[in-house]
Amino acid sequence: MSMNPVLVEVLRGDAVESRHTGALAIVDASGAVHTALGDVARPVFPRSAVKLLQALPLVASGAAQAFGLTDAELALACASHSGEPEHVATAAGMLAKLGLTADALECGTQWPSREPVLRGMVARGELATPLHNNCSGKHSGFVCLACHMATGARNAGTEPAEFTRGYVAAEHPVMREVSAALSAATGVDVERAPRGTDGCSIPTFALPLRSLALAFARCGTGQGLSEGHARAASRLRRAVAAAPFMVGGTDRFDTRVMQAFGERLFCKIGAEGVYCAALPELGLGVALKIDDGAARAAEAAMAAVAAALLKTEDTLLRGYSHLQLRNWRGLDVGSLRPTPVLAGLAGAAG
Amino acid sequence: MSMNPVLVEVLRGDAVESRHTGALAIVDASGAVHTALGDVARPVFPRSAVKLLQALPLVASGAAQAFGLTDAELALACASHSGEPEHVATAAGMLAKLGLTADALECGTQWPSREPVLRGMVARGELATPLHNNCSGKHSGFVCLACHMATGARNAGTEPAEFTRGYVAAEHPVMREVSAALSAATGVDVERAPRGTDGCSIPTFALPLRSLALAFARCGTGQGLSEGHARAASRLRRAVAAAPFMVGGTDRFDTRVMQAFGERLFCKIGAEGVYCAALPELGLGVALKIDDGAARAAEAAMAAVAAALLKTEDTLLRGYSHLQLRNWRGLDVGSLRPTPVLAGLAGAAG
Repeated sequence: MSMNPVLVEVLRGDAVESRHTGALAIVDASGAVHTALGDVARPVFPRSAVKLLQALPLVASGAAQAFGLTDAELALACASHSGEPEHVATAAGMLAKLGLTADALECGTQWPSREPVLRGMVARGELATPLHNNCSGKHSGFVCLACHMATGARNAGTEPAEFTRGYVAAEHPVMREVSAALSAATGVDVERAPRGTDGCSIPTFALPLRSLALAFARCGTGQGLSEGHARAASRLRRAVAAAPFMVGGTDRFDTRVMQAFGERLFCKIGAEGVYCAALPELGLGVALKIDDGAARAAEAAMAAVAAALLKTEDTLLRGYSHLQLRNWRGLDVGSLRPTPVLAGLAGAAG
Repeated sequence: MSMNPVLVEVLRGDAVESRHTGALAIVDASGAVHTALGDVARPVFPRSAVKLLQALPLVASGAAQAFGLTDAELALACASHSGEPEHVATAAGMLAKLGLTADALECGTQWPSREPVLRGMVARGELATPLHNNCSGKHSGFVCLACHMATGARNAGTEPAEFTRGYVAAEHPVMREVSAALSAATGVDVERAPRGTDGCSIPTFALPLRSLALAFARCGTGQGLSEGHARAASRLRRAVAAAPFMVGGTDRFDTRVMQAFGERLFCKIGAEGVYCAALPELGLGVALKIDDGAARAAEAAMAAVAAALLKTEDTLLRGYSHLQLRNWRGLDVGSLRPTPVLAGLAGAAG
C-alpha cells in the first residue's frame, strides 16, 4: 500500500511537532480529474460528509414538499449540528409536522458538542435526548421520508410509527432509497462496497475519494444526476446557503464558511478526517480524507483547497488553514500549516 | 524525509477506516538498540511523557524530603491527572506545605478532563482553578523546588513568592535544573534542541526517540545517571507504583496499567501521541510517537509494546491495543488494531 503525502503539518515553536497524511480528489461532473493527491481510488468511509447525498430522496420523493419543510429544516437534514437550542427545536419541529416526537429517532442520545450549551444543560439539570444528537436533523429527514413513502398505507389506517420503526437498517425501504441515491450520485454500487455502521447507526459505505468528488461535482452542477436528484441537490444547496447555522452551529467551520461564501461553496465535514465539497461556479467536486482521522487537519486542508480554488486570500479560510494553537494561559504555542502539495494547488488550478 | 510505518489501524466493520503511522525506540541503559521502527533519530517534543525526568531535581535536591512529600504527592508531580477531587486536594496540600496557595501556580486554568467531575462542578456552579490543570502536581513540584533552592534567602527574610514567581521561564533557576536533568538523562544538550512552549507554559525540547528511550532505560536501572538522579528516579517510580491513581485518574491508561503491573512497568503519556516507559526487570526504556498526535493510537501502541515485552496476554493491555469502538447507541462499530510490525515485537524480544 502506497503512502499518502503529508497534507498538513502541526508546528510547535518553529519545529514540526505532528504530521497528517491524506489524499485529495478534485474532479468535474464528467469525472475528469482536476487534482489527485495520494491514493484517490482507495475506499474511504465518507461518514457524515455525504449527508447531502443521503438527503436527496427526502426532496426528490416529494416528501419535503408534502410536509412543507423549510430551508432551515432541509439544512438540518444535511447537518452535523452542535446540539444548540435552535437545532433541537428545528428537529422537534420536523417531527411535529409528522405527528411524531423524539421517540421516533434511532440515532441514539448524544450531548451537544457545543460546550457552553452542554454546561448550561448540566447546570439546569437537563438531560440529553436524541434531538441533541448531531444527526437528529438527518434522522428527522429519514423519518419524514418514511412517513411519505407510507402515505398509502397510512391512509388505510396504519400508524406512522409502524413505517418509521427500524429505518436505520440497510434493508428498510428508507435506507434502500438512501443507498440508491448514494450509488447513483457516486457511480459506485454501494451494495458491493465495504460496509460499516455509522455513529448514528445507519450503514456507511467505503467509496473511492474520486467517486465521492464526482458525486459532489454532480450535485453542484446537476450534470450526471437524474432530473429529480438534480433538482433535489440544487434545493438542498440553496437551503444550506440560506440557513448555514443549521448545518453546524456557532463557530463551526461549515457554518462560518458557508455564511461567508453562500452558494459559491457547499462543504461538509465527516467523522475520521473526511471532507466533501461542491464548487458550482467551477463545476468541481472535492473529497479528501486525512489518513489518521483528525478533524483539525481535515478542516485545514479543506480551507486551503477552498482558498486555492476560489482564488481568495479570505482571512476566515486562512484562520483555519493556518490555525493558531494556544495553551491554557492563552499563549501562542504553534499553528497548523498546509504543506507545499496543498499550497501549490492554486497553480494547478490556474 | 522518510515515512514512518503504520503502527495502528482503525477498523470500521471489517475495513480499515484510519491509519496511524509512527516511530518506536526500545533501548537498554547502555544505549544499545533493542527495537527501532521508523525514524528514531528525528527530534520529537516529548511533552508530558517526560514528567518523571522533570521531577528528578525535586527529589535529588532534597526538596521532597525537606518538605516531607508523600508517595501520592511525588506521583502527582509526575502526573497528567484528570482533575479529580483527590488530585486537586493533593496539589493544594503540596502548596500548603510551602505556605502557598494555587496563586503560586503558573500552569493556567483547565477544567478537569474527567467528564463526570466537570459536570458535577458545573452543576454546583464551581469554577476551574489552576489546581484542576492536569499539570498542577508537576507545577507544585516546581514551586516546592523553588522554595527549597531559596532556603538560604528565605532564612534572610525574603518571601517564598519572590523565588517561585516566573518559574516557568527557561532562565529561571528551577527550569535550569529541570533542563539540566533532561540533558543528563537523555544525553542530549537540550539547550541546543528545537524548543517550544508546552501546554502548561514551560519549555519543551524536541529530542530523538532513541534518546528519550535511553533516558527511561536509565531511570529504570539507575545506570548512566548520577547517584542523586538514580536515587530520585527509583524513589519516583516507587511513588507512582504506590499511588498510581495520582499519575492519571479514573479509567486512565497509565493509572490502570500501573495498578496492574506495579513497579514492573512505568509508563507515561504525553500530548500529541507520545509515550515513554521504563521496564526495569528487562533493563529497557521505550519511547514512541504517533506522527499525527493521536492519543488513541499512542495508547494502543504502548499497550502492544508492553504486552510483547512483558510476554503477557493480559486482558487490560489487550483492551487498549484492540480497543472496541462503540457508537451513540452502544453498538460495536469497529476497533483499533496494532499492525504486524508492532505485533511482531514479541519475536524480536525473544
